[in-house]
Amino acid sequence: MTKSFGSDNHSGAHPAVMRAIVEANTGDAVAYGADPWTERATSELRRLAGADGEVYLVLNGSGANVLGLGLLLDRHEAVICAESAHIHTDECGAAERILGTKLLTVPAPDGKLTPELIASRLAGRGDEHFAQPGVVAITQSTELGTCYSLAELRKIREFCADNGLRVYLDGARLANAAAYLGCSLAELAEHADVLSFGGTKNGAMGVEALIVMRAGDSVNAPYLRKQHMQLSSKMRFLAAQFIALLTDDLWLRNARHANAMAARLASGLANLPGVDVVYPVEADAVFARLSRQHIIALQRHWMFHVWDETSSVVRWMTAFDTQERDVDDFLAAIAAVTGAPVA
Amino acid sequence: MTKSFGSDNHSGAHPAVMRAIVEANTGDAVAYGADPWTERATSELRRLAGADGEVYLVLNGSGANVLGLGLLLDRHEAVICAESAHIHTDECGAAERILGTKLLTVPAPDGKLTPELIASRLAGRGDEHFAQPGVVAITQSTELGTCYSLAELRKIREFCADNGLRVYLDGARLANAAAYLGCSLAELAEHADVLSFGGTKNGAMGVEALIVMRAGDSVNAPYLRKQHMQLSSKMRFLAAQFIALLTDDLWLRNARHANAMAARLASGLANLPGVDVVYPVEADAVFARLSRQHIIALQRHWMFHVWDETSSVVRWMTAFDTQERDVDDFLAAIAAVTGAPVA
Amino acid sequence: MTKSFGSDNHSGAHPAVMRAIVEANTGDAVAYGADPWTERATSELRRLAGADGEVYLVLNGSGANVLGLGLLLDRHEAVICAESAHIHTDECGAAERILGTKLLTVPAPDGKLTPELIASRLAGRGDEHFAQPGVVAITQSTELGTCYSLAELRKIREFCADNGLRVYLDGARLANAAAYLGCSLAELAEHADVLSFGGTKNGAMGVEALIVMRAGDSVNAPYLRKQHMQLSSKMRFLAAQFIALLTDDLWLRNARHANAMAARLASGLANLPGVDVVYPVEADAVFARLSRQHIIALQRHWMFHVWDETSSVVRWMTAFDTQERDVDDFLAAIAAVTGAPVA
Amino acid sequence: MTKSFGSDNHSGAHPAVMRAIVEANTGDAVAYGADPWTERATSELRRLAGADGEVYLVLNGSGANVLGLGLLLDRHEAVICAESAHIHTDECGAAERILGTKLLTVPAPDGKLTPELIASRLAGRGDEHFAQPGVVAITQSTELGTCYSLAELRKIREFCADNGLRVYLDGARLANAAAYLGCSLAELAEHADVLSFGGTKNGAMGVEALIVMRAGDSVNAPYLRKQHMQLSSKMRFLAAQFIALLTDDLWLRNARHANAMAARLASGLANLPGVDVVYPVEADAVFARLSRQHIIALQRHWMFHVWDETSSVVRWMTAFDTQERDVDDFLAAIAAVTGAPVA
Repeated sequence: MTKSFGSDNHSGAHPAVMRAIVEANTGDAVAYGADPWTERATSELRRLAGADGEVYLVLNGSGANVLGLGLLLDRHEAVICAESAHIHTDECGAAERILGTKLLTVPAPDGKLTPELIASRLAGRGDEHFAQPGVVAITQSTELGTCYSLAELRKIREFCADNGLRVYLDGARLANAAAYLGCSLAELAEHADVLSFGGTKNGAMGVEALIVMRAGDSVNAPYLRKQHMQLSSKMRFLAAQFIALLTDDLWLRNARHANAMAARLASGLANLPGVDVVYPVEADAVFARLSRQHIIALQRHWMFHVWDETSSVVRWMTAFDTQERDVDDFLAAIAAVTGAPVA
Repeated sequence: MTKSFGSDNHSGAHPAVMRAIVEANTGDAVAYGADPWTERATSELRRLAGADGEVYLVLNGSGANVLGLGLLLDRHEAVICAESAHIHTDECGAAERILGTKLLTVPAPDGKLTPELIASRLAGRGDEHFAQPGVVAITQSTELGTCYSLAELRKIREFCADNGLRVYLDGARLANAAAYLGCSLAELAEHADVLSFGGTKNGAMGVEALIVMRAGDSVNAPYLRKQHMQLSSKMRFLAAQFIALLTDDLWLRNARHANAMAARLASGLANLPGVDVVYPVEADAVFARLSRQHIIALQRHWMFHVWDETSSVVRWMTAFDTQERDVDDFLAAIAAVTGAPVA
Repeated sequence: MTKSFGSDNHSGAHPAVMRAIVEANTGDAVAYGADPWTERATSELRRLAGADGEVYLVLNGSGANVLGLGLLLDRHEAVICAESAHIHTDECGAAERILGTKLLTVPAPDGKLTPELIASRLAGRGDEHFAQPGVVAITQSTELGTCYSLAELRKIREFCADNGLRVYLDGARLANAAAYLGCSLAELAEHADVLSFGGTKNGAMGVEALIVMRAGDSVNAPYLRKQHMQLSSKMRFLAAQFIALLTDDLWLRNARHANAMAARLASGLANLPGVDVVYPVEADAVFARLSRQHIIALQRHWMFHVWDETSSVVRWMTAFDTQERDVDDFLAAIAAVTGAPVA
Repeated sequence: MTKSFGSDNHSGAHPAVMRAIVEANTGDAVAYGADPWTERATSELRRLAGADGEVYLVLNGSGANVLGLGLLLDRHEAVICAESAHIHTDECGAAERILGTKLLTVPAPDGKLTPELIASRLAGRGDEHFAQPGVVAITQSTELGTCYSLAELRKIREFCADNGLRVYLDGARLANAAAYLGCSLAELAEHADVLSFGGTKNGAMGVEALIVMRAGDSVNAPYLRKQHMQLSSKMRFLAAQFIALLTDDLWLRNARHANAMAARLASGLANLPGVDVVYPVEADAVFARLSRQHIIALQRHWMFHVWDETSSVVRWMTAFDTQERDVDDFLAAIAAVTGAPVA
């Protein structure tokens, strides 16, 4: 079976994560997070992110996003996000269903918002007929495999502060951004009010952390986590996963590796006529345009998703466990299918 | 450290469950449930429950309950449940928050609804001013450690059918009821429209199954599961847990053992003056009344919860990994604290 | 046709209200409340209530209640109210549906909460598993025709302040309470954070005012009023109704009259064997117990509602346009039906 | 004071509507719609629309839209609508807040959806990650003053039927469309599953009708109307308004007149350089582009709204009570401001 390039969640758990889970299975522990594993994982995450608020372990990415937005939104407020945002395109309308909020979307060609794009959705503030944006949601790294630079994040943050907007950062692949930018978690986190830090796509079995930067925003979080059905009873098994990822910077090494595999893939594609990489490859994803029949031929033996049928663009994702050989084999297959000689 | 009698989720995962998780960690698998583990677990659960609808693995008990109720409720409808129901007392108002439904509660001394109790909440049907019950929610085994007999379930089911009500069964501890009643899952499931079957309290690391009895009620379930943030990406690790529990009836053996430990505890208490068991001990819980100072003394070395401060009633739970010796030690401690000689 | 004793909303509009509506129909006015009628009505209501926040005209009583609760509730919070509260029994679960909140109900024999009754629903604060009360909802006058004294209101207010709870007052019949207590609106309003002041049951065609006592609680109100579908476009016609009610204290005169008619009815009943008045008659309602066959006989010619089938209690409501003769005729009919001689 | 061209809801009530309200103020009537006025208005509306389902009077346009969508949506479903739809742009996110639904918007240059535009939002059906459209919402006449032809409506209807989509029609200005098309209400209504029929913008004081075409879709409507806070207690005063509008086709005459005034305005503008009419003038609205300083000058004496700041487009609305002379005076003012000679 060939390595999947379909998603970074097609991989299993990193061996160190699995070991940590097994090791946490020792007798009793108080449920719902009052255990030493959770204390260790959350306090370490707080430290890494430089957070004054609390850290909450949750069960999946949608859970983190909806809960995170809910902590920041007033009951009547709306969210500004990119049209390509996961919360808009890939969560079946969970934010609207659970929070009753409206998403005010902005086309963002490379998946990144800017102060100008955000400003384009601010008409009608103070007018009771118009949805009132209260939160700007950004994704880092983005759904298109790009990364906001620290300067770009700072500009958004300042614009939002000046305009009474809070910032939620969907960090399902935050590790990949930190790896690409060569910065700390804290340098990324300081530009958000609340952020998620994804474990699952980084080698965990299934866990995400929601990091609240200011203590005041933590007050209602435990109740909302429970109401949002994101409170795990045997929490130690969530915490153990993060403990493993945080040990010896495994999270960063995993992300660096996945990024490197995507870069290797992109680099190989540069020599292949008939395949165009359509976004900068900065994290663990390569978006490429190739002909419809080449896609079909390639999917016979390789697992990946068509991102946009109309424009014939596919998404190829790497992961912590993608091997150089997997990439090279895949490149060879692409070359064979597109009829080009391998470089 | 003494064995916790605080909750059946203070235990870790059963070794066979843990082994199954580890074994499922083999390379890639398509995410979100399109994997062979999920296929195996859900088809086996369907078979065991005799369900025509589908089975959905979800992340925790509140998730199962809210999703299950949501599948059965019309948008405007309310739920009838016992005042002691977990959905009413222990989920922070999740059903109201997520579904917008009203819970019409009925005092039920032993935690069990009856046709008469249900009927007491049916006034005002057809009157637009009154909340309109559409679903009756029962818990099996109940939050008070009692079990509905099959005859009791049948009566409720028939009453509901006659009155245009659907039945949701919260089966967080359904295994314990099956063990107590000596019946199959199907014999329990046939009295519900949708039911949960709990893994977590039965030795899993963290997984629940939502079983839809009629195919027609499954139609919207995948979308609602996603919106309710209960869709796991690396689903194989949820499925593997159920595969372990279903192998050689581990789920039933675990439940029988936990029940037996509760029975042993109750039996030992019979000889202790100053301790009154207040509900029939039919599953894995013993509710007992003892004096306030005895509770405090006992909690110094033993973990358990006070159920009702006012009436000085505590809840002692056993689990799949409670040992006879744990029970006997605990009985000795109770005897010592209450000043009674050990039998 | 005999006068209805079914509800104070069986009456039409007071002639002065109707005149004010007709007079407001003069050419154009800016929609949604930016008109001089609305400015006049709301500023006068603010003054009367001694409010620092704003006043919002809304379309009906449920609209006022749900919006009012929504202004005070944090997203995750629950409401404590009497079991007899209109928001619990008569609004089809609107608060749960629209706000996603849980109502924590307390049996209150005369419809009135007390600090002790409120305290009985405060268990579990700070525990994420339990619904977290944030608001106490009281009704003045109550659904049972009783009135909180100012001292009783003060005690509730102080208890709530001490316990981090806010107070919402459902004032659908607040005028009747002011009339009974001989106090100003401000003396009532000061014990609430947000309150409604009912026009409809007081002689309006259909309008309620939501009064926000503190400016800070007004911030989100315009948006929530719009989202809750309570924003009227031709608002002047709502405002005109309140202008009429506030002119020469018509609201108070209407309420005094309705109260007097209820008192006259109660007084007449005192002489009738077979009819027991079951609650103190302090506003515009008389609750009476009489035999089932007497109820049926009486309903042949008189319109009123059975309040409680089980206990054979009916509710007889008076209104601003109930005449002494209506009451006397009704008393005669009751006497005839119950076989007693008229006093 | 000059006639407002700001909105058709800046007008008051038509004199016949006001008379009907006054005449309905005769003694008691049972509340909440069990009165002869409501029976007469709703049965006449059913007949006119050719509806098999029921007709529900509600309090305003947002109330009608949200309730109407709610009747048609499954709990998990989304709505497809034009980017210019009132439910998307002018209701502060009410549909998301109250229904928890997602609006999938489509750019529609003239405010009208087509099968092709609807089809562009159908990707991902059957995939649990994507919002699942269940209802298509159209507005007739549209927010841009255009009208769907009957042929266009039929095409949408057929496309929706073929694709398992239901049709909600926002008819806040349905009368204007009927007047423009010269067709009956039934010819319009047959292309929708549920539709609103606006009274307020047509000369009512404040009332809208929600018309359910198929009996089966009416079942839950009374409860949802109550939960949505759209149930009026003194309903006769809502019904009386529609009775007046339906008498001698006043609704149609009002709409024809308003349309004629808009046409007169558009016709006059044709001779004015510096003013471009940007959409076909088919109902009671004229959208025109003129320079920023001309807009400012004109707004000194005339009331109207800027529709789009960026493109310098204004909206001029006529109403049932706009006089020819008002239009001519306004044209003269526009001519004076834009420096052009009056034709």
